Amino acid sequence: MAYELFYWPSIQGRGEFVRLALEEAGADYVDVARRDGGVDLLMAALDVEEYPAFAPPFLKAGELVIGQVANILLYLGEQHGLAPRTDPGRLWVHQLQLTIADLVTEAHDTHHPIASALYYEDQKPEALRRSADFVESRIPKFMAYFARLLSNPESRDYLTGDKVTYADLSLFQVIEGLRYAFPNAMKKIEQEHPVLTGLRDRVAARPNIAAYLASERRIPFNEEGIFRRYPELDQ
Amino acid sequence: MAYELFYWPSIQGRGEFVRLALEEAGADYVDVARRDGGVDLLMAALDVEEYPAFAPPFLKAGELVIGQVANILLYLGEQHGLAPRTDPGRLWVHQLQLTIADLVTEAHDTHHPIASALYYEDQKPEALRRSADFVESRIPKFMAYFARLLSNPESRDYLTGDKVTYADLSLFQVIEGLRYAFPNAMKKIEQEHPVLTGLRDRVAARPNIAAYLASERRIPFNEEGIFRRYPELDQ
Repeated sequence: MAYELFYWPSIQGRGEFVRLALEEAGADYVDVARRDGGVDLLMAALDVEEYPAFAPPFLKAGELVIGQVANILLYLGEQHGLAPRTDPGRLWVHQLQLTIADLVTEAHDTHHPIASALYYEDQKPEALRRSADFVESRIPKFMAYFARLLSNPESRDYLTGDKVTYADLSLFQVIEGLRYAFPNAMKKIEQEHPVLTGLRDRVAARPNIAAYLASERRIPFNEEGIFRRYPELDQ
Repeated sequence: MAYELFYWPSIQGRGEFVRLALEEAGADYVDVARRDGGVDLLMAALDVEEYPAFAPPFLKAGELVIGQVANILLYLGEQHGLAPRTDPGRLWVHQLQLTIADLVTEAHDTHHPIASALYYEDQKPEALRRSADFVESRIPKFMAYFARLLSNPESRDYLTGDKVTYADLSLFQVIEGLRYAFPNAMKKIEQEHPVLTGLRDRVAARPNIAAYLASERRIPFNEEGIFRRYPELDQ
């Protein structure tokens, strides 16, 4: 059975966290909306009676339909050994994923602080203000937290020890996204916390991830997704 | 064993979603920071080496320490029958909770669209703009979604059928919070979707919840929490 991933076809966005887990797991999957007529299938799948998602992404796994990124990863983690099977490890990895999700929302809101439905150009003064706080306070706070997990009480390869989990894949994606959107800020942060660069490099070098990143399945970052390069916001 | 809930002592905030689940379950718990010296205990617990939370709330359950509201509810749901035990129900309830969490973040950002660390008064023009979109577009979109789940293909008492889950308790809290913060907007919404009022009333009438709401354990809404009444934002 091939998984079916439903997500917008032209951006990494929130779907990318799911794609990375599927790729690391070597899972068989179809990126539905990237096929001919796929966006229509995506829209129709939002309109079902049973288990309708509030928004993409969502994943069909046989009879199951699962929405919300962290929830999809909870499921894939259980199916493919991308998280411990028992508490407390299972809950700890999920907690980290939810903290990463909070950071992702804040990253999105740097360019859309007023309304997702408005263009960036219609909320630029607010975006400048929000981004200044994001760069000065929020990125450092989140990154110091993850760096602490990677180095305290002793250094480790991944967030929870020597085995990769879906939270590591997601943290890799956040670091890549922030490097793209806020290169100046991230250069400073990574100099301060080299363990983050280490984690990023270890994930990027995993064979399945490396093959994915080099493939056409990896959509390039662009100014339609969550992480956008607007140089004026990276001061 | 009594659960220990760690959260700010003077607001409902995000901790309230956990309190409601503990109360509905009739669980034995201590609201740590509301005791003498409790805030010091909260701050110390944020600074531990193992399983440090990024932010409150978090819950100690014996040896376990669990952070992030949706994650705490995933655990409590399993322990106290506040969610189905098996897929797809378990994942569906969690998906609904994560969608509610998104709405809660948006409700918070109506009064803090620029930075959580700034006062409301320092971001009032932006708050007016963001709230206008929240009231016109976002509350209606979320509430239409939940109303649809309560009535389609047939009407039901709770989001997933005839048994209450933690997602119902959380939706109750969101409706209460939005009634407090945006009474004009919510009056219209509830007229349009009476199934929401029905859900709210059914949860409020549950014996353990009714006793809780009438007790001093329920902190009143105020202008320090997530839901705040600033009449200028409710136009």
